[in-house]
Amino acid sequence: MRIVVLAGGIGGARFLRGLKAAAPDAEITVIGNTGDDIHLFGLKVCPDLDTVMYTLGGGIHEEQGWGRSDETFTVKAELAAYGVGPEWFGLGDRDFATHIVRTQMIGAGYPLSAVTEALCERWQPGVRLIPMSDDRVETHVLVDVDGERKAVHFQEYWVRLHASVEAHAVVPVGAEQAKPAPGVLEAIAEADVIVFPPSNPVVSVGTILAVPGIREAIAEAGVPVVGLSPIVGDAPVRGMADKVLEAVGVETTAAAVAAHYGSGLLDGWLVDTVDAAAVEGIESAGIRCRAVPLMMTDLEATTAMAREALALAEEVRT
Amino acid sequence: MRIVVLAGGIGGARFLRGLKAAAPDAEITVIGNTGDDIHLFGLKVCPDLDTVMYTLGGGIHEEQGWGRSDETFTVKAELAAYGVGPEWFGLGDRDFATHIVRTQMIGAGYPLSAVTEALCERWQPGVRLIPMSDDRVETHVLVDVDGERKAVHFQEYWVRLHASVEAHAVVPVGAEQAKPAPGVLEAIAEADVIVFPPSNPVVSVGTILAVPGIREAIAEAGVPVVGLSPIVGDAPVRGMADKVLEAVGVETTAAAVAAHYGSGLLDGWLVDTVDAAAVEGIESAGIRCRAVPLMMTDLEATTAMAREALALAEEVRT
Repeated sequence: MRIVVLAGGIGGARFLRGLKAAAPDAEITVIGNTGDDIHLFGLKVCPDLDTVMYTLGGGIHEEQGWGRSDETFTVKAELAAYGVGPEWFGLGDRDFATHIVRTQMIGAGYPLSAVTEALCERWQPGVRLIPMSDDRVETHVLVDVDGERKAVHFQEYWVRLHASVEAHAVVPVGAEQAKPAPGVLEAIAEADVIVFPPSNPVVSVGTILAVPGIREAIAEAGVPVVGLSPIVGDAPVRGMADKVLEAVGVETTAAAVAAHYGSGLLDGWLVDTVDAAAVEGIESAGIRCRAVPLMMTDLEATTAMAREALALAEEVRT
Repeated sequence: MRIVVLAGGIGGARFLRGLKAAAPDAEITVIGNTGDDIHLFGLKVCPDLDTVMYTLGGGIHEEQGWGRSDETFTVKAELAAYGVGPEWFGLGDRDFATHIVRTQMIGAGYPLSAVTEALCERWQPGVRLIPMSDDRVETHVLVDVDGERKAVHFQEYWVRLHASVEAHAVVPVGAEQAKPAPGVLEAIAEADVIVFPPSNPVVSVGTILAVPGIREAIAEAGVPVVGLSPIVGDAPVRGMADKVLEAVGVETTAAAVAAHYGSGLLDGWLVDTVDAAAVEGIESAGIRCRAVPLMMTDLEATTAMAREALALAEEVRT
């Protein structure tokens, strides 16, 4: 079985662990969000790709969900001693090495997709990880800072401002001109199942879908497209998805996110058992829906979620 | 008093400590060798500039003579885990930060001289440190490897091969096209004394002198030019200067190095007391010479050497 997953960072990466356990023989292709990539200290940092790579490769900081385990921060402290920031982005020494290798390879002319493949040679994530695009796409968020409306990089909004200011709009700058990376459309066309994990529907899955050709390829693949709600009981399970959902005019409910993806794209949707009352409405909108536990508390729970997603896919296939 | 010093790495840096102590009120301009600069992991590394900066700024690894004190090697180990080398060049985590800042600034369009000034803002070396040139100059060494004659980067010859293979030639690639960095010729023209510290006469001081305009400016400055022999008792005090001296056809003696600089450039020369027998011959070649202790065993000894150099300069001035 060939499964394609559109993944953001922590939520997507943890779900993928469960999916690998639920379908150990499947060929899993992960299309990774690169809209939150950022240049820091002259280095290209790809937080979502790295979170997937480190999580599946055994290098992740488990409690934190991002960054490397056993991390130290010597380089960052030295950069601060030079007066060079930003200090609000937590790059550790181990993590720095990844960005140094990536930046060196990109400087040598390799596209991000080839670089990601090379980095995965070390991590052996057990999935094929492809960035959504080799072209630069940068998610910017329109906010008011000191009485002035301005666009800030998503990481500045998310990490520095902790999404504490109102987001008026979320714009994946460069997405319209971006092309899907080599392998992305092919993987979608050859997929047996396409899965939207409980990643952020706006700044993770939404950004991937904003690359021209990807949404269309998914809609036309003719295979089940199933998703898992990142919203449980009208609140995001992690992160600040409610803030960016508001910016795009979507309520923070499992049903509203399903409707945001739309029945033209989505065939099946899993909501948490606490949102069981929403099932009927979602189904009446043309999306098959089941209520199952959706908290990724451990690998067992996550594996069960992945099994439910694959079962729902088989259900909508027939 | 304005003193200009042409410096390589360890020998030059340690001498400068003594010079600062011997002439605390002097304005010291250091013209640093950049011929051993190397690009590693996509980062610009300037070993000699950094050794001067760290030594005078209190960040040097004292025993080693290069690199940072309290150093760790997490980034390097991670790079090796990615299969990315070279492993033979010892870049520590603290040191990496310097190269990251430098590379970022150069990428942003700043010349190396401006970058060096910015890095020195942190280290406050107490001297004005200027790279010999903002243009790329790279010392290559012609060696036989596996039966084949080829040019290797100086660092590969020095650090990886430990100068264990015969050097047939030493070539400062790019020197002929290089221009002195802003401030270099001005500092020389305004100097009261010009000093060649006990740095390598071929790959340190020699490379600086290979930048068109610098040798001529020194010869025409009309002020005392004095040097200290890096050769004591027919052997280099540190490093492998004998190997590169042989490559340029110069004997490893204090007298031969003085003759290599030449009386057209050099007015005074200090040899070690063990080489006192060479004084007469050097003086007969038109270079004022004194035999004094030249081992930089501690700051006191080094300060005494600097005082002798300044005294010799006053002697030749009259």
